[in-house]
Parts: sequence; structure tokens; C-alpha cells
Amino acid sequence: MIVAGASGFAGALAASLVHRHPRLELAAATARADAGKRLDRLYPRYRVPVELTGLNLDLAAESDAAIVAYPHGAAAEVVARFIEAGLAVVDVSADFRLHDLATYEETYGDHGAPGLLGDAVYGLPELRREEIRQARLVANPGCYPTAAILALAPLAEAGLAGDVVISAASGVSGAGRGGGDRLHFVSVDENFTPYGVDGHRHLPEIVQELEGLGGSADRVTFVPHLLPLDQGLIASCFVSSSREIGADELGGLYRDSYDEEPFVDVVDDPPGVREVRDTNLCRVHVTVDGRTGRVMAFAAIDNLWKGAAGQAIQNLNLMLGFEETEGLL
Amino acid sequence: MIVAGASGFAGALAASLVHRHPRLELAAATARADAGKRLDRLYPRYRVPVELTGLNLDLAAESDAAIVAYPHGAAAEVVARFIEAGLAVVDVSADFRLHDLATYEETYGDHGAPGLLGDAVYGLPELRREEIRQARLVANPGCYPTAAILALAPLAEAGLAGDVVISAASGVSGAGRGGGDRLHFVSVDENFTPYGVDGHRHLPEIVQELEGLGGSADRVTFVPHLLPLDQGLIASCFVSSSREIGADELGGLYRDSYDEEPFVDVVDDPPGVREVRDTNLCRVHVTVDGRTGRVMAFAAIDNLWKGAAGQAIQNLNLMLGFEETEGLL
Amino acid sequence: MIVAGASGFAGALAASLVHRHPRLELAAATARADAGKRLDRLYPRYRVPVELTGLNLDLAAESDAAIVAYPHGAAAEVVARFIEAGLAVVDVSADFRLHDLATYEETYGDHGAPGLLGDAVYGLPELRREEIRQARLVANPGCYPTAAILALAPLAEAGLAGDVVISAASGVSGAGRGGGDRLHFVSVDENFTPYGVDGHRHLPEIVQELEGLGGSADRVTFVPHLLPLDQGLIASCFVSSSREIGADELGGLYRDSYDEEPFVDVVDDPPGVREVRDTNLCRVHVTVDGRTGRVMAFAAIDNLWKGAAGQAIQNLNLMLGFEETEGLL
Amino acid sequence: MIVAGASGFAGALAASLVHRHPRLELAAATARADAGKRLDRLYPRYRVPVELTGLNLDLAAESDAAIVAYPHGAAAEVVARFIEAGLAVVDVSADFRLHDLATYEETYGDHGAPGLLGDAVYGLPELRREEIRQARLVANPGCYPTAAILALAPLAEAGLAGDVVISAASGVSGAGRGGGDRLHFVSVDENFTPYGVDGHRHLPEIVQELEGLGGSADRVTFVPHLLPLDQGLIASCFVSSSREIGADELGGLYRDSYDEEPFVDVVDDPPGVREVRDTNLCRVHVTVDGRTGRVMAFAAIDNLWKGAAGQAIQNLNLMLGFEETEGLL
Repeated sequence: MIVAGASGFAGALAASLVHRHPRLELAAATARADAGKRLDRLYPRYRVPVELTGLNLDLAAESDAAIVAYPHGAAAEVVARFIEAGLAVVDVSADFRLHDLATYEETYGDHGAPGLLGDAVYGLPELRREEIRQARLVANPGCYPTAAILALAPLAEAGLAGDVVISAASGVSGAGRGGGDRLHFVSVDENFTPYGVDGHRHLPEIVQELEGLGGSADRVTFVPHLLPLDQGLIASCFVSSSREIGADELGGLYRDSYDEEPFVDVVDDPPGVREVRDTNLCRVHVTVDGRTGRVMAFAAIDNLWKGAAGQAIQNLNLMLGFEETEGLL
Repeated sequence: MIVAGASGFAGALAASLVHRHPRLELAAATARADAGKRLDRLYPRYRVPVELTGLNLDLAAESDAAIVAYPHGAAAEVVARFIEAGLAVVDVSADFRLHDLATYEETYGDHGAPGLLGDAVYGLPELRREEIRQARLVANPGCYPTAAILALAPLAEAGLAGDVVISAASGVSGAGRGGGDRLHFVSVDENFTPYGVDGHRHLPEIVQELEGLGGSADRVTFVPHLLPLDQGLIASCFVSSSREIGADELGGLYRDSYDEEPFVDVVDDPPGVREVRDTNLCRVHVTVDGRTGRVMAFAAIDNLWKGAAGQAIQNLNLMLGFEETEGLL
Repeated sequence: MIVAGASGFAGALAASLVHRHPRLELAAATARADAGKRLDRLYPRYRVPVELTGLNLDLAAESDAAIVAYPHGAAAEVVARFIEAGLAVVDVSADFRLHDLATYEETYGDHGAPGLLGDAVYGLPELRREEIRQARLVANPGCYPTAAILALAPLAEAGLAGDVVISAASGVSGAGRGGGDRLHFVSVDENFTPYGVDGHRHLPEIVQELEGLGGSADRVTFVPHLLPLDQGLIASCFVSSSREIGADELGGLYRDSYDEEPFVDVVDDPPGVREVRDTNLCRVHVTVDGRTGRVMAFAAIDNLWKGAAGQAIQNLNLMLGFEETEGLL
Repeated sequence: MIVAGASGFAGALAASLVHRHPRLELAAATARADAGKRLDRLYPRYRVPVELTGLNLDLAAESDAAIVAYPHGAAAEVVARFIEAGLAVVDVSADFRLHDLATYEETYGDHGAPGLLGDAVYGLPELRREEIRQARLVANPGCYPTAAILALAPLAEAGLAGDVVISAASGVSGAGRGGGDRLHFVSVDENFTPYGVDGHRHLPEIVQELEGLGGSADRVTFVPHLLPLDQGLIASCFVSSSREIGADELGGLYRDSYDEEPFVDVVDDPPGVREVRDTNLCRVHVTVDGRTGRVMAFAAIDNLWKGAAGQAIQNLNLMLGFEETEGLL
């Protein structure tokens, strides 16, 4: 196993999960600016006693899988090389999430390997488990889309998720190690701010997947907020469903969707992000607003686990034929 | 001036604002369990060098105004006595906010002075400045309603706020000094949780005021979340307006409503709560979601200031004929 | 395995560690006020799917070990019953840490099973590994003593820790689930406070163990501070050593003491508590103040892990003849 | 009044305090990279409606005083120009705090205006009120020295502060707006770290001032820690006094020193930083460790107020002949 881009928050956790995984071996953890540093010096609590190296594609010859945790735009080329070398690849970046090249380019700019777009499977196991099992390239979903889609999928599949407001909030690790002034402790501490109101780049991904589940997503609005905490993300979803739906039917829909899922818990109260910190769990609560009949669905995840590195391992487990939960409990 | 209930978060700040106010004198700050303690021992940074006393209505004879910061239910009786004694009263509790007794009782239980309900003015100066000037009893709005109504009022007045989702979030001081396990540091730290999804008690207040501005509020959904911070509140509002409205018209509506307001700033970016901490400001941002045409309005306040004690002083200033901003800049 | 008192912070983590331990089985997790609740409802992220039960000593018949995480004073009796029933017991409370009954009573009040004091081994494996292996009753050290003693032991053993200032700081989980106003989120957030300056009850434990390592501890001063965070503890120790000691000798002392230790890392920079969060690690840094010759030793732990539940498992592993690190990596 | 360097944390607060000061007028607030931006956009809650300008020394002709809040090294030259132009200057940087050029250069590098060193007064009003009143150039103390010296001065004056350990902790605003990775929210959140153990640059300042009060400071050790909060600083000081001193004598010493001080409160319990947030107060608690006889003195300040901008205003008030507390209550 190679983890490429292991010096960022998601990559470092991915390296740590691989290191602890009973059936995976961390052959190399790569970085660019941090190459030469030890990973357990950058992230002591993960206790991964390896030195970060530059990316060397010879490594690929000895490995059968890779997780790529590069920034979007930079990932595609590296992914292409690994695919070419025959590796199973989970790409944690946004580069292969969108099926439509034009939408990608509009959202992120030029694409480094457009020829692979058609081969990539959107890696939300709860929706595409069988495809992931067969895939050579899995595009790991964004953190907000993971929570939003898991909150909405049962409704979307029932054709009820036409008009949706997603008011979401994430901890700071979701924004990565850079960020300058905006992510300085003093900017975030005791603060809470909506952002991306002009169209956050996770929106096209949410739209694509909701439409894939049936019906239109023309009436989907998504606004994220920045939370003064490290790890944790909630999508609070408000759905004006096209027909009246009672709490019982709703409960049935969600139970049918998720009762067998190892990482989705349908719970009786709105979940807090502490409940899932450092876990690959998604906790979902669904209810009806008595006054308006509006459906309200809440999904809480740890943005670095189920929203990034944990889900990458879940996907890898499927791709490599392992137990889906291996190394994640 | 009497501040009754000065040992809670809102009451203590009110006492501090009175103490610093150039035209008010803090004759007494009362408390129940904390009577006998010095206020500057309970809240050192407010530096109010007075001893909390039990409530003694003889005090009323020497005062001309009172702020009552009792819990809902307990406030009404005290308010009634002060009114009887001829004082101008701002009640920070919920007891006089709802005009309709049945709605109050359904939401909060028995009412201690229903006869006064008709005399109370809902104390949002931006909407009812002239009524407040004439009032003897002002019901200080709840923290969530203050932000939500200021975010939505220009739309409501234009008849455009029919279908509304209010996804709000507040710091912990909004929940008061009690709270047990739920507000223990370890429960809140690194957490973020939706709550009150079965109907938060601030909803009837929001509905009442939006309906007062014109049109129905049957399609208003309100869900609060608990933030891991002390002071600060945001209402993120999503409005499916009954007709299409462009950014320019929208900007015009909000400027017309708020350009003269000393405590409402219409700003170009979504506001964070740090921007208004320890101020009586409400910062409002309004925009249109390009894809869906949905209007999005965000209002940030400090829940203890504009959401409680600061607004109480603003109301008192109006009632007593002072400059509205006195003691609040 | 029984975990008695599994509804508190340390007990719940202990139950979780037992649940995940490859060689232990969680037969029962008991609680008093929370009996009947599910542990994964109180502490969702630990994912321990068991119901808390009242304490039933019949359970002891089927178990061979117990961790007792009761409050001090209440623990002794329960421990005695378990010992009587032949179980190996790790007591996380303070009840068996002090060898001297008079010191215990002065610090904590009456003792519920003084007859067992002589049998208890102080459970700091780095100092008493062999005794722990033979023990039936291990007194798990306090969180502050764990860090302070690990920071100071190499000096104490060399007879150099005569005059010591320990300025320590802990996250809030160290103070437990109660605490009232003092541990309300608003009291702790954005705050940092020294406390226990009249003599914190962990001091006698530190004194006892330092004296056990040789020399007097008459000149040991210990002051804790409360940090605005959940898990994490640092002991910053300042030692006026009885003779001059250079950085090289110092480094040698610490390496000799800790190079073989699985849970103590001697590191090149002062450690932050994030580095050890959710781990059983203690990171120690030692250096000399160039101006004064004073030795400065810093030890960081997670107060709930190495400072409580993690160390309890480490002790149990030793008592039961397992690999010391089992279930803790 | 000019505030030069008003885009940093201390400078921005200084500008805000000047703006609100009844006897000062903010003629210009300057910045380098942020010139052209509005100050109320960078720091909305300070509500200072001015545009930051580049430094233009013509401004000096129309002003009679300046606060310089440049980084150390860059400040000296600007200060020299203002002094030349006849202004009263408070320099918030370190450039004029040390009387000895060699010590300055060893600590900070080259000095831009060494000729002025002799004219500068160390601006701790509690120690040098009369000198400050006569000064044209006041060197505003560092944040750690302010707290440490106020905690220790009564002992030092009594010749009792020979052997001292200062274990201090500060919020992140003390480290300024830069800082890169180290001050990223995720690095600081849920963390607490000692730093500067090789000799923090505030140490020479502490030594200079303690020696100025009498006796040697050869045995002074100082170690700071970084707190996961915005504003607040505590110096916890442990003094092995050269003779035994009882609590009563100690209390007398501190009362004699501080009873008349408007901004120093001697309090009965160890102070938390929340108690002084957004105030110019220093709260000091002193006690004796019963076991060892060691004196323990704790001083809490807001590092941006009494530790920087607030104290700058206090100094200016003295220099300009105003009431010392003006604009600070």
C-alpha cells in the first residue's frame, strides 16, 4: 500500500489506518514539502513510525493499491500513473468525483486525466457497494456530500427529495493545513461563520448523486458553516417533500436503507459530532416538522474519517475483497 | 434602576451595562440563591462592585425602571409588582412576548400575570420603536427570534417570506447557568448538535412576529444547534420566495429597512459571530442562491447583548427618552 | 471482566478498552444512577453495545478480573468484595494509592477497607512492573501523579529531585462528570485557572512515590491548573538539583530509564497534549535551564488514558500475564 | 493620535481604545500589507470606522502622540522619527524595553535607534508612574513580563525574590497574526504546549526589572506555555524566599503595594483569565505552600489589554497628564 500525500490531515490519518490495518502494509507514505520528515513527528498521536518520502513511481511496482490524498487538480496525474501501473486506487481528492468533465472544469479548473473519468466509481459504499467492489479507481466522496447524501438518500430514492435546503457545518480539519489568516486559531476560536454562499464546490457532487438516485435536484440549496472545532461535520437537511409523509413511513424508509449498514446508525435524537469523533460512523436522525410537514434529516460524521480517510479504507476493503469493516472498528 | 435576577448570564450583563450607563444608576441587583454574594465575585470581568440582594419591593419606590431577568414563569409576578409600583419594566424572560395566552400556556405552562399580556410591547426596536417609546412594559425578544426576525423582516414586510427554513446556532451562554450534564464542558467541547427539533419554544415568537409583518408563517421551520462557544448566535435563513427576486432588489429592500438603524449592519459577506461579540450589533447578509433562486439571509448577534441584555438597555433607552445607543457603544 | 462504575469518564473508557481488547471480555459494566441505560447511548463514540447494570456481586463468580472506577471513598468496599471473590482488581480510585492510612484519612476521609492497604501495589508499571505482575490489587495512580512521577523518576532515582516545583495543567475530563457551575462550559471556555493551591489531594501520592525512589520530598510543591480542553495533562517540573548536571548526563539518565518502555517516549521538544490524545503514551522532555542550571522536565499524557483507563488496562495486562501493550496500540 | 501598525492584534485594539477614549482622537491608523482596508472590516467588533493608511510622517506634524505597534526590529526607526517630530510615543514592541544594547542585540538582533535607548522608560505604571509622566518615549512591557513582574514585585522589593520559577501560559493572540502551521486552529485546539524552554525573549526583560527592584535575578527560570484560547495570560510564580515568610506578612506586602492601584486587584483565590478578559485588570493572588514554605504568586491579565494595548493607553494617559484610568473602565 502506498499513501500518496500523507502529510495533510486526511492523508496522515489514511496512513495511520493503513498502518494499523490487519491486512494492509504501509509500503510508503509520500509527501512533497514534508518529504524527509517522520510522520510520527508531524502527527505524534497517530504513532506511524515511518519517514515521508518523495513520490517515486517505482514503488508502484511492489504495491497493489494506493490512496491518493493530493489537493484537487494535482491528484489526477498521480492517480493515472498508479492506475497505469495496475494498482487499485482510492482518490481522496475531488478529481474523479464528477462524471461530467465540463462541470469539473467549471468547479475546479483543468483536469489532469480526463480519460479516466469514465472509469471512476463514486465511492459511497452505502449506495454503490457492488460497483466499488469491481472498480480499479474509486473517487472518495467529499466530506459534506458524504453526510448530505447519507442524510437524503432514502428520501431521494423514494422520489421525495425535490426541494432541499442543506445547512451544514464542519470542523476546521476539513479545510486542510493551509488557509492562512482565515484558519489562524484566533480567526476561528469562538467563531461560527457561513461561507461558500456563492456556490461551494461540493454542491455539484451532491447534485450529481441525488439526481443519480432519481428525480431532479434543481431545488437543492447547500450552505456550509465553519465550526470552532477540529473534527466533525453535520448536514442538517430540510426537505419539502412532494407529498405528505408521516413519521412512521419515514422511519421505515431509513431503516430499510440503513439497517444492514455497518457504518450508518439511524438514531432517535439529533446527533452531535462528538458522538462520531474518531470513528467511521455516520449517525442519521430523521423526523417531520409537525407544523409544516417538512422532513428534517440530520447526519453527523467525522469529516476526517467517514468524510475522508476512514471511507477511503472502507472503499479499499471492498476493492480488495476484504471485510468492509476491517481496520475500522 | 433595579436589575432583578442579576446572577444569571443575561441579568449580570444587564447589571453591568446599567452600571456603566451614563444616565442610569444601579440601585439594586437582586438574586435568589446568590443573594449576599458580590456581583464582581461571580462575574469579575464585569467589575460591578455591588452585593446581590434578595428581591425587596420597597426598592421599587425609589426607582423608576427595572430589568427583570428571571426564568420564564417566575418573571411574570415580579414584573406585575414593578408595573403596579409605576416602574418602566423590560422583561428579559419569555413571559410577555406572546400576545396569545393559550400559545403561551402551551409553550411555557401557567402564566403569572395574564392581565398584563395586552399591555406588553414586543421589544424589537427595529420593528416597534414608537410603541416601545410609549410602553410601560416591554417584552425583550428571545435570542433566536431577534436574529431570525432581523434576518427576515425586510422580506416579510414585502410579503415574500412565506416558506422559510431557519437553521440557527447559538453559543452556550444562551442556555443559562443550569443545564447539568448537557452543558458540562465535556459535553459541549468539540461538539455541535441540533436540538429542539420537536418544536423549540422560540418558534411561536418568530411566527407571531413574522405574521405581524404581513402574510402567513405557516411554512416556517426553525431548528437550533448548540455551538461549542460562549457568546454568539447565527440564524441562517432560507426563503423560497413567492416570486423571483434579484440581488439588486433584495439589496434595496434590506438597505431601506436598515440603513438608519444604529445596531443593524447589512454586510457584503456572511457574518461570523466573533464579529459581533460583546456588541449590540446585528450583522445581516442577504443573497440569492443562483441555482434555485432561493433567498438566503444570515444574521449574527451576540446572544447576551442584542439577544438579551444589550437589547434590554436599547429598549430602556427608548422608554426613558434617552438616546437609543446610550451606554451601548 | 467487570468494569464497575462504567458511567463516569474513566470507567466508560475502561469498558471500551476492555470491549476492544483481544483477550478480555466485558462481562458486565455497572453504574449506579445510570443503570439501565445503554453505554453506547451515554458514550456513542466508544461503541460499546451493552446495558449498564447495577452492581451485582454474583457477577464476580464468573469473572476473573475487575476494574473499579468508583469515586474515592466508595471504591474500597467494592474492591474488597471483588478481592474476597478472588478477582484480580485494578482500582482506578484513590482508595489504595496511599500506603499510610493516616495520610489517606487526612486527605480523603474514612477508608472502607483499611485492611487491604498493605496488599495494594501502586500501579505505575514503569516503576513497579514486577510487583504489579504478582499483585491481586493494583491501585491505579492519579492522573497528575502519573505525569509528574514519570517526569521526575529518573532524577529521583539519581537522588537529584530534592527541590521540585510541579506546575501542572489538566483538561476537564479529569474532574469527572459532576462539578456543577465550576465545570459548566461557560466557566471553563476561554479560561485557565490555577486551583488546589492549599494542597491538592494528589500531592501525598506524588510525595510517597518520589520518596520511595530515594531521598526526601520535603521540598516538593505541586499546583494544578484547569485547561479549557477535554483530554490532556502536562506536568511541567522545575528541579533545583542538589548538584550541577549537564544536558548529556541528563539525557543519559532518561534514556536509561525509558528506552525500553513501550509507553514512554523521551522527545526532543516540549510535548503538547494533542500529541498523546487518545493514546496511552507519556511523552517526556528534559532539559537544563542554561542560566540557572535548573533541570526542567515536562511530561504529557492523556489524563483518561495513561492517567486512568489506559493505565488500568496496562496494569491488568501485567496482572493477567498478557503482553503489556495488548489492546492499547 | 497616530496608531502605527494597527492591523495586528495589539495595534487594532489600541486603535479601538483610542477611538473610544474621551480625550484622544484617532488621526490615523497605519498598516503595511493591509493599507487601504478598513479597520472595521478586519476587526468588525472593534467598530472603528477608519481606513488603514500607509505610514506617512507628515501625519506627525498634526499629532501630539503615537502608539507604535510594529514588530520588534521594525519599530525603532519609526519611533525615532516620531520622537524627532516631537510626539509622545508608546512603543508596544520590544525595541526599547531593554536598557542594555548588548542584551537587546543578543535577544532580538540589530537595533534601529540605539541612541534612544537611554531615553526610554519601561512602561509599567505600577512601578514607574512618575518616570512615565515625564517620559517622551515609553517602552510598553511585554505581556509575560507584565504579569510576572506584577506577581513578583512586592517580593522583589522586599528582597525576597531570589529564587523564582515562573511557569506562565498565554492565549494565542499573544503570538500575533502570523505563525503559519504552529498557530493553525488545528495545531492549537485541544492542545497545551510548553515552548521557549531554551530561553524565551521575554526573560531578559523580567530579569532587568526584577533586578531593578533590588537583589539578583540569577535564579529566575521562566517557561511559557501556549493555551488553546484567544486572550488571557497567567504567570504562576514559585518563590523560594531567602527567609521564611508567613501568609499575614505576605498579604501585607501585597496590599501595601497594590491597594491604591486602579488596575491591580489582590484577590483571595487564584485568578482565571476569564476574570480579566477584555479588561486592563491584573488580578494577583499570593499564598504560601504550607509544606515547603514556598511563596506562590499568580497574576492573570488579558495579554492584549494589560499585556499590550490597554497598558499603552494607561501609559499615554500618564504621559499626557490625563486621569490614568481614562478610556479604560
